[in-house]
Amino acid sequence: MAAGVRAFRGAAAAFTTAAGCRALGSLSPGSAAGRGGRESRRAALAAAGALGGVGLWLWQRQAVMAASEEDEEDKMLRQRFMAPPVSGLQELRRRRRELRSRMELLIMETQAEVCRALAALDPGAAFAVDTWERKEGGGGISCVLQDGEVFEKAGVNVSVVFGHLSEEAARQMRSRGKSLKAKDGKLPFCAMGVSSVIHPKNPHVPTMHFNYRYFEIEEADGTKQWWFGGGTDLTPTYLNEEDAVHFHKTLKEACDKHDLKLYPKYKKWCDDYFFIKHRGERRGIGGIFFDDVDAPSKEEVFQFVKSCARAVVPCYIPIVKRHCHDSFTPEEKLWQQLRRGRYVEFNLVYDRGTKFGLLTPGSRIESILMSLPLTARWEYMHTPPESSKEAEILEVLRNPKDWVH
Amino acid sequence: MAAGVRAFRGAAAAFTTAAGCRALGSLSPGSAAGRGGRESRRAALAAAGALGGVGLWLWQRQAVMAASEEDEEDKMLRQRFMAPPVSGLQELRRRRRELRSRMELLIMETQAEVCRALAALDPGAAFAVDTWERKEGGGGISCVLQDGEVFEKAGVNVSVVFGHLSEEAARQMRSRGKSLKAKDGKLPFCAMGVSSVIHPKNPHVPTMHFNYRYFEIEEADGTKQWWFGGGTDLTPTYLNEEDAVHFHKTLKEACDKHDLKLYPKYKKWCDDYFFIKHRGERRGIGGIFFDDVDAPSKEEVFQFVKSCARAVVPCYIPIVKRHCHDSFTPEEKLWQQLRRGRYVEFNLVYDRGTKFGLLTPGSRIESILMSLPLTARWEYMHTPPESSKEAEILEVLRNPKDWVH
Repeated sequence: MAAGVRAFRGAAAAFTTAAGCRALGSLSPGSAAGRGGRESRRAALAAAGALGGVGLWLWQRQAVMAASEEDEEDKMLRQRFMAPPVSGLQELRRRRRELRSRMELLIMETQAEVCRALAALDPGAAFAVDTWERKEGGGGISCVLQDGEVFEKAGVNVSVVFGHLSEEAARQMRSRGKSLKAKDGKLPFCAMGVSSVIHPKNPHVPTMHFNYRYFEIEEADGTKQWWFGGGTDLTPTYLNEEDAVHFHKTLKEACDKHDLKLYPKYKKWCDDYFFIKHRGERRGIGGIFFDDVDAPSKEEVFQFVKSCARAVVPCYIPIVKRHCHDSFTPEEKLWQQLRRGRYVEFNLVYDRGTKFGLLTPGSRIESILMSLPLTARWEYMHTPPESSKEAEILEVLRNPKDWVH
Repeated sequence: MAAGVRAFRGAAAAFTTAAGCRALGSLSPGSAAGRGGRESRRAALAAAGALGGVGLWLWQRQAVMAASEEDEEDKMLRQRFMAPPVSGLQELRRRRRELRSRMELLIMETQAEVCRALAALDPGAAFAVDTWERKEGGGGISCVLQDGEVFEKAGVNVSVVFGHLSEEAARQMRSRGKSLKAKDGKLPFCAMGVSSVIHPKNPHVPTMHFNYRYFEIEEADGTKQWWFGGGTDLTPTYLNEEDAVHFHKTLKEACDKHDLKLYPKYKKWCDDYFFIKHRGERRGIGGIFFDDVDAPSKEEVFQFVKSCARAVVPCYIPIVKRHCHDSFTPEEKLWQQLRRGRYVEFNLVYDRGTKFGLLTPGSRIESILMSLPLTARWEYMHTPPESSKEAEILEVLRNPKDWVH
């Protein structure tokens, strides 16, 4: 049903070379000149004290770019993002009216906005920022905070990849499986997205996942096929109705600005997609999920995706704030670990993006598997007692609820 | 390459109903009479003090079977097994010359022998024994020891399932994909096996897995297709050359009794099968693995499988004894947890038996997933330092060694 999303997510992580990956703080090899005057993504990364020591890392511009080339807008963006955009600021500025550029800026902004919001809640922890390149074109920026006070593991990844696809690969990437006409068997494509999974430590703070992505493929006659996909969903260890209502209402408001039909449709799609079939239960209490969306118009879908991306922080951060200092028992921590086990089962057995990525040679495995929790647990024949808080959440995972009516 | 094994393992666990599962110690509903005089597998399970309190559980015979019907052989077997055999002792005795019966006795004996050997090393822990039935025919016995002193999780499962397969399902079950001629589209089949994963607590004691299985399918003209599969393999957290050599030599001796070509062939098959492609590393240091074996003769392959099954305790138990009291650091425990994460990745992403089982409606999920460790860990971008003990085992997982020459 939703092949495109996972295909995309897979592709985003898949078409990269491990060799292209650089660790935080390592210096640029100074080889940027060969990239045709474009800013190099191999810019050195340095700590930014400017953000109140919240552990964010900003990038410094490459020496090959003369100071005079940098205008005010560049400076502003440079301070705002987690690393230089994959396409380079000059290139983005040059084709600023194109949707690809606007989408790349949106995913970069979303990454930085979410990282800042998370880091502000976990002052002792730092995001590691890795940039990686894909030999065939494009690359990505992975931001991961691990073993903090509040967050067990929080990853926010951006990828922008381009190049050529085979007709077969292109067909697999669209959930509706449309066939596309290639020139000499190859289709120029561009895929980009932001993808994130946040696993908090406290069992009263839910795990959250979101992903927004855009695809473009050019057919033999020059026609461009394009579509968007995405979603935001919540995976609590224990049910808190107030949180569930807040989360869903915030997403509904983002959807309703565009079309009243969207929230109910994408809420159901989310419940259907995140289904752990062999357990007969969903991964979490849902949210929204959509894929292969190319109507009513490119501009309208982009505006909708923008609203969804902007809703990530308001739908989730208040829940983290409310519960990150809640007390909890060892038994509650244990139940969280068992639920983490289910999260692993969904991601490794069903998530098509993960599967596609793992099976594609040259994938950046660490970026794909950052979605896995730091720790997980499997107990043989574990069944929570009837009427317990553990049984309460299971009931909702088995029979999804309507949270907004 | 080795579809049959996983298909079988999947099938064994798949064709069962959750409803048929009974927990340890619950009493028989006394409904055995309806099963045509055969002993009921719903026999009550009771603790056996006779085995020196090692935590083994034996079964008590069903009241419906008159005392006079039980001969000495039955009594002996009853005390030896973990639960009544799926086919019933009387039935097994009636067709004692058939290979199906001899194989069922072998897997029952192997289950009991391994459980006893493990329990003897972990005196405070108890095996939970669950028997389950498959609505369409057959059932199984799951023995699981969890959170002991020595073992984190140890499962030894037996399953014996029979009924009818579609031509398509039957083809999928043979690794060589032979097509079989069905009568009215259905093929009578019988699949049985013993399957086990042992995860110890101490990071200096390796995880061990084994599985031996037998398949029979009857074609339209009455011809019986049959084949065996199986293997035993070791997954250490740290490399201990002496242990690796002992493990492989013991398996080699079991193979060499039958044909000197078997060990090298099945050692390579094992290295190839347990490959975590996206990591470029094997799950462990191998052992033997084979599938779809139907030559030179049924009797000869059965004798080979018997030798392999008999080698499980001698190849593994001395290693557990040698290291279960070794001291270890928190860092060594952490590395074990990361390796457990890889074990989960292999089993959920690649193991065809697990995948087949999870995707088949009506599977007994708890028996399939007892192979997962109690706990596992994923750290973003974890790389052990060069020349460390952690790097040493990784090197062997990336480039399998010859342990016996």
